[in-house]
Amino acid sequence: MTNSLTPFFSPRGVAVIGASSHPHKLGYGVARNITQSGYPGKVHFVNPNGGHLFGHRMIASIADIPDPVDMAILVVPAPFAPDTMRQCGLRGIKATILVSGGFRETGDEGAALEEKTLRVAQEYGIRMIGPNCIGLLDTHFPLDTTFLQPPMPRPGEIAFISHSGAICAALIDWSKNQGFSFSRLISLGNQADVSETDILPLVAADEYTKVLTLYLENISDGARFIQEARQIVLQKPIIALKVGRSESGQRAAASHTGALAGTESAFDAAFEKAGVFRADTTEEIFDWARALAWSPLPQGRRVAILTNAGGPGVIAADALEDNALELSDLSAETLNALGELLPPAASVQNPVDMLASATAEDYAESLRLLLTDPNTDAALVLMPAPPMYPAENAVSAMIPIIQASQKPTLVVLMGSEQIAEASVRLQAAKIPDYRFPERAASALAALAKRTEFLREMDGFAAPVISTDLKEAQEILANAESGTWLDTELADRLMNAYGISTSPIKLAPDAESAAKLGEELGFPVVMKIASPDISHKSDVGGILLNVASAVEVTEGYEMLMARVQAQRPRARLEGVHIQRMIPQGQEVIVGAVRDPQFGALMMFGSGGVEVEGLKDVAFGLAPLTARDAEKMLSKTWAGKKLAGYRNISAVDRAAVVDALRCLSQLAHDFPEIAEIEINPLKVLEQGIVAVDVRVKMVKELS
Amino acid sequence: MTNSLTPFFSPRGVAVIGASSHPHKLGYGVARNITQSGYPGKVHFVNPNGGHLFGHRMIASIADIPDPVDMAILVVPAPFAPDTMRQCGLRGIKATILVSGGFRETGDEGAALEEKTLRVAQEYGIRMIGPNCIGLLDTHFPLDTTFLQPPMPRPGEIAFISHSGAICAALIDWSKNQGFSFSRLISLGNQADVSETDILPLVAADEYTKVLTLYLENISDGARFIQEARQIVLQKPIIALKVGRSESGQRAAASHTGALAGTESAFDAAFEKAGVFRADTTEEIFDWARALAWSPLPQGRRVAILTNAGGPGVIAADALEDNALELSDLSAETLNALGELLPPAASVQNPVDMLASATAEDYAESLRLLLTDPNTDAALVLMPAPPMYPAENAVSAMIPIIQASQKPTLVVLMGSEQIAEASVRLQAAKIPDYRFPERAASALAALAKRTEFLREMDGFAAPVISTDLKEAQEILANAESGTWLDTELADRLMNAYGISTSPIKLAPDAESAAKLGEELGFPVVMKIASPDISHKSDVGGILLNVASAVEVTEGYEMLMARVQAQRPRARLEGVHIQRMIPQGQEVIVGAVRDPQFGALMMFGSGGVEVEGLKDVAFGLAPLTARDAEKMLSKTWAGKKLAGYRNISAVDRAAVVDALRCLSQLAHDFPEIAEIEINPLKVLEQGIVAVDVRVKMVKELS
Repeated sequence: MTNSLTPFFSPRGVAVIGASSHPHKLGYGVARNITQSGYPGKVHFVNPNGGHLFGHRMIASIADIPDPVDMAILVVPAPFAPDTMRQCGLRGIKATILVSGGFRETGDEGAALEEKTLRVAQEYGIRMIGPNCIGLLDTHFPLDTTFLQPPMPRPGEIAFISHSGAICAALIDWSKNQGFSFSRLISLGNQADVSETDILPLVAADEYTKVLTLYLENISDGARFIQEARQIVLQKPIIALKVGRSESGQRAAASHTGALAGTESAFDAAFEKAGVFRADTTEEIFDWARALAWSPLPQGRRVAILTNAGGPGVIAADALEDNALELSDLSAETLNALGELLPPAASVQNPVDMLASATAEDYAESLRLLLTDPNTDAALVLMPAPPMYPAENAVSAMIPIIQASQKPTLVVLMGSEQIAEASVRLQAAKIPDYRFPERAASALAALAKRTEFLREMDGFAAPVISTDLKEAQEILANAESGTWLDTELADRLMNAYGISTSPIKLAPDAESAAKLGEELGFPVVMKIASPDISHKSDVGGILLNVASAVEVTEGYEMLMARVQAQRPRARLEGVHIQRMIPQGQEVIVGAVRDPQFGALMMFGSGGVEVEGLKDVAFGLAPLTARDAEKMLSKTWAGKKLAGYRNISAVDRAAVVDALRCLSQLAHDFPEIAEIEINPLKVLEQGIVAVDVRVKMVKELS
Repeated sequence: MTNSLTPFFSPRGVAVIGASSHPHKLGYGVARNITQSGYPGKVHFVNPNGGHLFGHRMIASIADIPDPVDMAILVVPAPFAPDTMRQCGLRGIKATILVSGGFRETGDEGAALEEKTLRVAQEYGIRMIGPNCIGLLDTHFPLDTTFLQPPMPRPGEIAFISHSGAICAALIDWSKNQGFSFSRLISLGNQADVSETDILPLVAADEYTKVLTLYLENISDGARFIQEARQIVLQKPIIALKVGRSESGQRAAASHTGALAGTESAFDAAFEKAGVFRADTTEEIFDWARALAWSPLPQGRRVAILTNAGGPGVIAADALEDNALELSDLSAETLNALGELLPPAASVQNPVDMLASATAEDYAESLRLLLTDPNTDAALVLMPAPPMYPAENAVSAMIPIIQASQKPTLVVLMGSEQIAEASVRLQAAKIPDYRFPERAASALAALAKRTEFLREMDGFAAPVISTDLKEAQEILANAESGTWLDTELADRLMNAYGISTSPIKLAPDAESAAKLGEELGFPVVMKIASPDISHKSDVGGILLNVASAVEVTEGYEMLMARVQAQRPRARLEGVHIQRMIPQGQEVIVGAVRDPQFGALMMFGSGGVEVEGLKDVAFGLAPLTARDAEKMLSKTWAGKKLAGYRNISAVDRAAVVDALRCLSQLAHDFPEIAEIEINPLKVLEQGIVAVDVRVKMVKELS
């Protein structure tokens, strides 16, 4: 794969524009790092004042840079950026990193300067990372364009793409005693040109990168991000930390769906659709990434715990449960073998507690037995420092066993000084170690989730549902922006996308009532229509289960007679006719437009209490059957569809279809701001959208 | 405070029974540690083989130990324990730590030996810690009775009481590079005699201990634990990690309440009642404990964030929100002063971003401004290593500011090598530092929670509710164990404790119907009573809102006539009379007996879906008004009582009363296994227990 971004991670020659011999200037740090990083290409320093720096002669102007040079790092005051960019263009340099600050982040003036610089870059076909960034590094190539304190991190397997330069700097330092390192790392700054989505494929293509990790403050093009990420996760896992939740705030929304669907729900749904794992904390990212980079994947969620003390075993068992993992049910063969190996007071049942007297050989042999047990998918080894010998002895005995197995083993070394050497040995062998069982269990769960994700891939099919796009286009053609769609039109719109509704229609006389009955389908409900009567049942103004045109005609006359007798002064407009809806369950289904990700779908417990109960789940349109199934399974409303106690089972499949159809509708028509069906009545056979509301967007952006 | 446990942490003389000169024996480790710990009392080593050890002559027998000696550490093979204990008794030693294993943890034989040893100890009035433990240490006295690798941890402020010795050992090692240390630490082993509850007051009484932390696998006497802890937390916070969740399993239960109230709900409720903070992970314990030990308490939840980069600020703002903390709204004065201090591109709004150019003085002066702002209760300082100078410079500039303020400041040093010295300086100044904003925010929230807890103390009053204990005793006198109480008795039981019910009664004729109507109170509902009619409304068999005795008499005849006309063959037994219950909200209220903590109360959304919705909260009986209020506020069912959209507000106070009365009943009668009111109908005025079920325990243990 070669494209306009390729030079960023494999330039044949790099120029530092604004290289400086003053140690306090960024241009010094950049020059120092690129020199010391061991970068194998050609290095050029540009400074109009001339002189020498790190064994290189300073070049006076960009035009004078000799070949090869296909990337430039710009460390120049912001006002000089547009002209410097132009000179790069004239020299034929197509990849630039604009390190300097003083642009959009400082206000309107800076924003204008950024815009101007970008225009120049585009004019010359130059790709630009930044401005206001710390650049990038590749520990394998190697290449370091940053000004951070050397040395560059050692070669690693985890790539990191970041919207914050400070986080990059902090993580590089932090990683040094955390047992992992980076393959490629990139700080994107203001993203005037290159965004996280642009750079994703290039980072993923790196052979040394096993896992991609992202620090995101936003996503500029939601649909493209999902598409790119979706391709990558088939090969390599992506873990994202999305921050700025507290800034997202609430949507201005007219429906329950809108009120409940915060922008973070859209990010959750987007990551799920893209197959990206969303971490809650920075530490969690790397707890997971280390396991995903180094360990084989487990075939299931059954974990064997091996410990030399009871307490850690109990904590670990709790942690497995918290992470939806299971204690594996050891085979009789394993139990026997452990029984022969270990002292009588040891517990051979999972968690296997060898007791404090466990030798290094006990650790190794017990682990071997656990890993070969057919009922075990993964092992979790717990090691508070053994009282009578160094922890590293046990670790060294286990390493070949762990490396020989196709099942993952994570090791928890509990302590600090007494387990330091053991930790070093595990890391050298690329075996993830943790200080506490809780964090190791979370990493094991990430491995299991990855296995399940890869298995589910076959369910990732395009939706095949019947929709009448043309009919819907006609219905929406005259819809006024910013308003609610007329009820009848809303019903027709649903029907066009295969969602049956239950319109209420007014019959001014018996004949039209009978006709409406036939139109709507029997049986029907008949209700007296009068602005003066609010409680219709009090005056006998309702007829249920009316089964034929004849019955409707008779019913019409009967209702009129009854009501006139009881309320002679009431104005009677006729009778409302609605199809009789059988018993069933009621749910809510909705869609709301997200500016970044398109239509965000909601499903859950409906009624007036929907916002209080918050029993809802979200997904991004268009939904596959699997997406819709997942939404159902996340809510009580969805689980209940299969029946619960004296609540009868209803047509769950019809809900899946309706969700998919509605998602297709919301996807097809960006001019729809919100749709809400509350309730959607789910029957033994099929569904009925009882109350449908559709709101149009104010202005299509 | 002096009692039988006092010698454990301040013995005048200690004997090591089984001291050994073989470096691989535990008796060697114990002798070494007590010698090297700097213990100021008299040390005696007992070994029948004689010789010298660490400058002490070995004493041949316990009888020969000279004064003073008031504590003995026993490191002897299990079979010798009873006799050794007896010799200690004869010598007049009243405090022993039985370090050795080989007791209950190994099976029946060991359990018998443990029992025998305990009986000897009790015979001589000896208190015993262990067996199967690693003993205790006091870093201030100092005293170290363990056999762990020296050196003993440095003097600290956090006490740790543990059911697991291995966790003690691991944490002592781990603490060494975590910036905290222990004051007193104790491993309780099998707790044959001394339990966590016994030792709590002794540990709390230590002047150096600022925070107590607990690792618990169980609690032997729930009521006493709550009582002791409740006293202590008024002075010093307690943080507990309760493990063994995965082992707790489910209750065998007959009611919704029983099914939902897992044993972990009881622990949650117990800790809440005791004022003990429950941590989820080991790391969380000490994240909180460090802040609670070292920082002043904030007056509220308004936090100012100070950073030198945007990314960390965004993460921190998210973390505040996740922990229910708020970004403080800086005063105009502060904003102006920051504006004058910082460069124009800096963000003076909270989170205050000074930019990467921030000097050490900028950090100090900005922090001073934030801490003096009246709208700020606490500060969170974020520091990825400043690019141009060492992080410790900024830290040193801030330390006097932090120490001078009565508001807490937590510092996040992001990185590893570049912030190492800064971390050392903060810890020396007893200022908590963290690596990531998420964990610091969690600690800040613990501080805020502590403030709120201490403020709430005035609400901790004994319940004053009207109950008729004698009437209830009479009702329950003949209740058969293991069965459901007869419906009528259950209703009477509720009435005895001030909970109104709505009994349904059968009237075989019009006269008794009228009488029942007067007895129950008008208006009433009348329903035809017939084993042959299931849908009573279909045959006109229901009369609502019957308002007087005359109407009841007429109604009786009318119902009989109507139903006989429509179903001539149906057997009619008379009419069921029930007080008419007005419109209202429906909730569930229940109680289930927990073996450790007594009656566990439940409140929440009722109906048939209660187990699916899981909108329930728990509390321990007897409930104060505040306890009951808290349970309401945790659930949607409770929030809704105040009204929501078109749902009218109902009598929330009556629910609080009913919960308290029911909790008093469940508390007063241990012979009740489960009570469930589902639904409890909450009216505009008052409540009605519509369906009451009471189950008696099988055997009173």
